[in-house]
Amino acid sequence: MLEELKEIVYRANLALVEYGLVKLTWGNVSGIDRSKGLVVIKPSGVAYDEMKAEHMVVVDLDGKVVEGNLKPSSDTPTHLVLYRHFEGVGGVVHTHSNWATSFAQAGRGIPALGTTHGDTFYGEVPCTRKLTEEEIRGAYEEETGNVIVETFMGKNPLDIPAVLVNQHGPFSWGKDPMDAVEHAVILEEVATMAFKTIMLSPGIGPMDQALLDKHFLRKHGANAYYGQK
Amino acid sequence: MLEELKEIVYRANLALVEYGLVKLTWGNVSGIDRSKGLVVIKPSGVAYDEMKAEHMVVVDLDGKVVEGNLKPSSDTPTHLVLYRHFEGVGGVVHTHSNWATSFAQAGRGIPALGTTHGDTFYGEVPCTRKLTEEEIRGAYEEETGNVIVETFMGKNPLDIPAVLVNQHGPFSWGKDPMDAVEHAVILEEVATMAFKTIMLSPGIGPMDQALLDKHFLRKHGANAYYGQK
Amino acid sequence: MLEELKEIVYRANLALVEYGLVKLTWGNVSGIDRSKGLVVIKPSGVAYDEMKAEHMVVVDLDGKVVEGNLKPSSDTPTHLVLYRHFEGVGGVVHTHSNWATSFAQAGRGIPALGTTHGDTFYGEVPCTRKLTEEEIRGAYEEETGNVIVETFMGKNPLDIPAVLVNQHGPFSWGKDPMDAVEHAVILEEVATMAFKTIMLSPGIGPMDQALLDKHFLRKHGANAYYGQK
Amino acid sequence: MLEELKEIVYRANLALVEYGLVKLTWGNVSGIDRSKGLVVIKPSGVAYDEMKAEHMVVVDLDGKVVEGNLKPSSDTPTHLVLYRHFEGVGGVVHTHSNWATSFAQAGRGIPALGTTHGDTFYGEVPCTRKLTEEEIRGAYEEETGNVIVETFMGKNPLDIPAVLVNQHGPFSWGKDPMDAVEHAVILEEVATMAFKTIMLSPGIGPMDQALLDKHFLRKHGANAYYGQK
Repeated sequence: MLEELKEIVYRANLALVEYGLVKLTWGNVSGIDRSKGLVVIKPSGVAYDEMKAEHMVVVDLDGKVVEGNLKPSSDTPTHLVLYRHFEGVGGVVHTHSNWATSFAQAGRGIPALGTTHGDTFYGEVPCTRKLTEEEIRGAYEEETGNVIVETFMGKNPLDIPAVLVNQHGPFSWGKDPMDAVEHAVILEEVATMAFKTIMLSPGIGPMDQALLDKHFLRKHGANAYYGQK
Repeated sequence: MLEELKEIVYRANLALVEYGLVKLTWGNVSGIDRSKGLVVIKPSGVAYDEMKAEHMVVVDLDGKVVEGNLKPSSDTPTHLVLYRHFEGVGGVVHTHSNWATSFAQAGRGIPALGTTHGDTFYGEVPCTRKLTEEEIRGAYEEETGNVIVETFMGKNPLDIPAVLVNQHGPFSWGKDPMDAVEHAVILEEVATMAFKTIMLSPGIGPMDQALLDKHFLRKHGANAYYGQK
Repeated sequence: MLEELKEIVYRANLALVEYGLVKLTWGNVSGIDRSKGLVVIKPSGVAYDEMKAEHMVVVDLDGKVVEGNLKPSSDTPTHLVLYRHFEGVGGVVHTHSNWATSFAQAGRGIPALGTTHGDTFYGEVPCTRKLTEEEIRGAYEEETGNVIVETFMGKNPLDIPAVLVNQHGPFSWGKDPMDAVEHAVILEEVATMAFKTIMLSPGIGPMDQALLDKHFLRKHGANAYYGQK
Repeated sequence: MLEELKEIVYRANLALVEYGLVKLTWGNVSGIDRSKGLVVIKPSGVAYDEMKAEHMVVVDLDGKVVEGNLKPSSDTPTHLVLYRHFEGVGGVVHTHSNWATSFAQAGRGIPALGTTHGDTFYGEVPCTRKLTEEEIRGAYEEETGNVIVETFMGKNPLDIPAVLVNQHGPFSWGKDPMDAVEHAVILEEVATMAFKTIMLSPGIGPMDQALLDKHFLRKHGANAYYGQK
């Protein structure tokens, strides 16, 4: 069942290791088959070098395991909230990548400070509010998804395909699992640049809006002219 | 004698190199056979690429060499103090890993600033007080162990399986040698994140207690639900 | 057509990856055949591991594609402005290398703080002014070249073979494509050293002029004595 | 002539690359045969991957080339001053390693902040005064050696086997070329730790003298007990 998507999700999980975004068993990638309403996700706490495509777990949008002998990632409920609320999202990634997590721990979003950021993120990558004690003690992983959705109220999640969960770390998403991984790579890169920029010029404001418009829109949307065709 | 434990300790020492936690001949890992009261530890000042499992030295809990032609690590007395006082510890690691050592040099513990920390360390990783001149000039390596034990008075060392020795560097421990190595890896990672977080938000306080409880307890203790079974 | 230059430009593009200066499909290198007035440049948005020498695109100095099935890099108009205005330049490189880009985002040039800098750059690597909204909304990539040329008014671009474009990132150049890549490598290295130096001594001024003269001129110009013959 | 020493010096030069201390053609190592009064040193500006043992150049203590078809490193006169004034030194290394050079650019020595430092350097690694314009315009490379010797007046260079040349970078030395390379590795490591420590605790003073004595003297001198026999 969903063998092709399992292979894609499996490879996307390995890509997190290759890009240096995860340590030990940390991190997870999922992908969705929108026509079937089923999500494929990494199993919980399995070592990357022992993982195989067939270990990927299939769950429905309510979190019920439909196929697979292993428990799905403990972050599965967060992924599912994002799939339920963010139309057009085909893949979700969660890491504790070093620089992005440092911003999350500081409770600060990653401001749009230059064109590297603006090529992918159309504005600041926001940091969520902290979860309440009630949310933490309740359906914690689901509430993590809810606070992300709350943070994107009135925003198009495809224009800013990542978020920092306060005191936790980043989630990113994209049209498919590899696209979400690429956004995780870029997020980590812009986080390190933002850190250094802030150290060099502590009071720096965001980049010029016209420049942000130019860079985001030359790669995205109807008038994009970057890349082939 | 203890050939299997020697192999385990040997591999755990090599893992320090693979994880980038040590340079040159720095660092050492030991493991204990609690039933025999014997400890296996890396020899002193031997190059990692010339080291073999049979070079591991066997000592009793008083530090007497029971087997092996090489001198045990000069830090052996510190390891032994930890085994004598910390029940349930099966492996001990000492490194001068870069970021954790920088906190030790600054005389600062590593605060619990996010869930990466809370997944493994149930609160701040403490920094010991400085040793007195008398302790330094006396049984220095043993006193180093003593000051660690003093630092954990009233705390469960398995809840916070690492420490920073002031002006020196980190020790970590775990249920076995590889577990102790994993804690050394995570310690270094949370040290770098804490550094960056503090640079971004100098006055930042520790993470919310409810979130720390949630993350530590979903991986540890009776109601853990992370990982497979 | 220009097969040898295509091979050189192709290899120089791959060198960006080997030196760790680019991620994903970022970055581009071009080279010029001055006798023919033709420029060879990387295609837009192609993955480095799928790129071949024959994918390189040939354009004339007005940007018209003379050979090649792929679209040239979207930064081509910037490269062309530099070739038109900077005599003696045979190769141009653009990256978003991490440290140099952080200075660009901070709107700060990289000051000449030591001999590592002075061996290659005869003074501060300048940061351009910000582009105006009109420039951004107009022929943006060409205006990016124009603001670089403006920044070098009265300076010899071969004495300081790199620039930071404000809120964007570095361009470098050299007598040929590999020379321009080497300058990109050195720029990134002096950017990281400058960052750390500024953190250690925030008010530090530029290095002594006599020392800068000595180092630049022992490697460059009529009386150079560094290297073989 | 001196084929064995050439091989040793050649391998020590390659070790600089393996340890990540040099970029491009930067850096150089030399070794001395005290009985013959001859020094073997890397040629100037040759790529590491094209270099062979037979390219090493033999010079006498006055800098006259005794054997070799290539020009010796432009830093040769600095090395020779060190061999003439520092008894017991058998190898000298010069790099522009990133962190140590940043301290040199900041005009700051690397303070002894912890036992990693104290195991090798018996006190602060000093930074020289700046050279005068006259020294720079005169026999510059020789004056660089002289200012190092001046910095060590009243100190034993074997107790602190490295120095930072102001606005330039580090030199290190040891009983033989590989020993000098190891000191360059450790210098770079303690430089990064010192930087981070200073960022965390800006007003931090040097480590306790008793702890420094303990660590340096357990590895060096008559009562050393670290390592094998």
